[in-house]
Amino acid sequence: MTYCLSLLCQDGLVFLSDSRSNAGMDSIATHRKMHVYEKPGDRALVLQSSGNLSLTHSALALIAQDLLLGETNPEYPHLMNQKTLFETARYIGQKVREVEKLDRANLEKDDYKFNIHFLVGGQIGDLPPELWYVYPQGNVMHASIETPFLQVGESKYGKPILDRGFRFSSSLDDAIKFGVLSMDSTMKSNLSVGPPIDIVVYEKDTLCIRRRAHLTDKDPYLQTIRQQWGQGLARLVKEMPALGFESAPPESQPVAGKPL
Amino acid sequence: MTYCLSLLCQDGLVFLSDSRSNAGMDSIATHRKMHVYEKPGDRALVLQSSGNLSLTHSALALIAQDLLLGETNPEYPHLMNQKTLFETARYIGQKVREVEKLDRANLEKDDYKFNIHFLVGGQIGDLPPELWYVYPQGNVMHASIETPFLQVGESKYGKPILDRGFRFSSSLDDAIKFGVLSMDSTMKSNLSVGPPIDIVVYEKDTLCIRRRAHLTDKDPYLQTIRQQWGQGLARLVKEMPALGFESAPPESQPVAGKPL
Repeated sequence: MTYCLSLLCQDGLVFLSDSRSNAGMDSIATHRKMHVYEKPGDRALVLQSSGNLSLTHSALALIAQDLLLGETNPEYPHLMNQKTLFETARYIGQKVREVEKLDRANLEKDDYKFNIHFLVGGQIGDLPPELWYVYPQGNVMHASIETPFLQVGESKYGKPILDRGFRFSSSLDDAIKFGVLSMDSTMKSNLSVGPPIDIVVYEKDTLCIRRRAHLTDKDPYLQTIRQQWGQGLARLVKEMPALGFESAPPESQPVAGKPL
Repeated sequence: MTYCLSLLCQDGLVFLSDSRSNAGMDSIATHRKMHVYEKPGDRALVLQSSGNLSLTHSALALIAQDLLLGETNPEYPHLMNQKTLFETARYIGQKVREVEKLDRANLEKDDYKFNIHFLVGGQIGDLPPELWYVYPQGNVMHASIETPFLQVGESKYGKPILDRGFRFSSSLDDAIKFGVLSMDSTMKSNLSVGPPIDIVVYEKDTLCIRRRAHLTDKDPYLQTIRQQWGQGLARLVKEMPALGFESAPPESQPVAGKPL
């Protein structure tokens, strides 16, 4: 299983990915799911992937091939010469559709789902930073001020903490903390999502990536965050008032022995 | 969608259910998913249900019919005369299998899943309080000291808070708070899980239910908990140290433009 998360803030973007892959309980491996592409001064892009590993690897290989062809032919369309983030997301969707032609029918013969999801975010030239979701069908949608984060993979466990506190107006430093907490909650509730965690931060208008981190399970920062969070939550629960049962209106209570 | 949660503590049991049912975005109704059966001094049982509403209603109607037959024939097997909680859970499983015979084939003709899940908990006589899960196949499993809570329905959003802090050794008052927070996180992340929330608390060895509550969306306790929790989480995040990027080992960082 995979969990990738991208956060859109007024000051830039934060990307987090776990790096565990599994094909059954006895085949657990580490694969990078975060891919950075940059041409400093022109654009910086971050791709995150989830789904069937063979499918994401094929799509990434097609992207790499196009980049190679683009080296000798500048007109050749590739990941790094699209005009907008929307066109970049559509280009990735096109690669997903190429992989679909290659593999879908054969996978479905053996009941495998055509499962491949991408997130792509970054900034191109003078345009604002954006964040896009590319579906297995190749269609795309974007994050916004009202819905400022996108997730792929095992997304539910890590969503409540973001819904509670993360906003477009959050600082990049706070966004990183929300991201780490969201990732850590997911790892705690689903053991097939696992460290190391890759983190990339894009600061608006820099057109390059200056902040990256790679947190292993034993990373002191991750351990500090976990400990402080666990203790802090326990304290918060203790401080909350207890529910007073005498105040419950009797007429609204379940009736004993009358299930219907 | 539904979210039901049962918590097993050393001092008793706590049960929480939402009460929203929906069959599509434009058909949202309120249905009770928590059912209390008690014979004070002998036993107290709480049932919670999730899945296809017609299936859970049929199973509950079969249970009610058996109780009625049991009034004139004390030997007739019903929900309230099983010897153990295990046998009670197996009895419910039998009712689920009766409904399966009635409806499964017809449902599957129209691509509806045979989806029916029950939780049953309580105490019988001198036996310890127990908590059981009844699957759509009629098989059963129980909660334990190591895994002291069971969930049915939309279970993922509300799991991290329980994994972080709820334990078998938690007090009943703290278990209620964890339950309310778990329920509230789920309602915030999935709008099809909704208030009012039914809460039933079973205090060990009382063999009756003395504490029940029914919290509407405007309930002052729910609003206080939400506000304190939201503010507390924001404060906790602020207090956490920021990630220091200079400490990340360069050799472990993603390499720009080299996705493979």
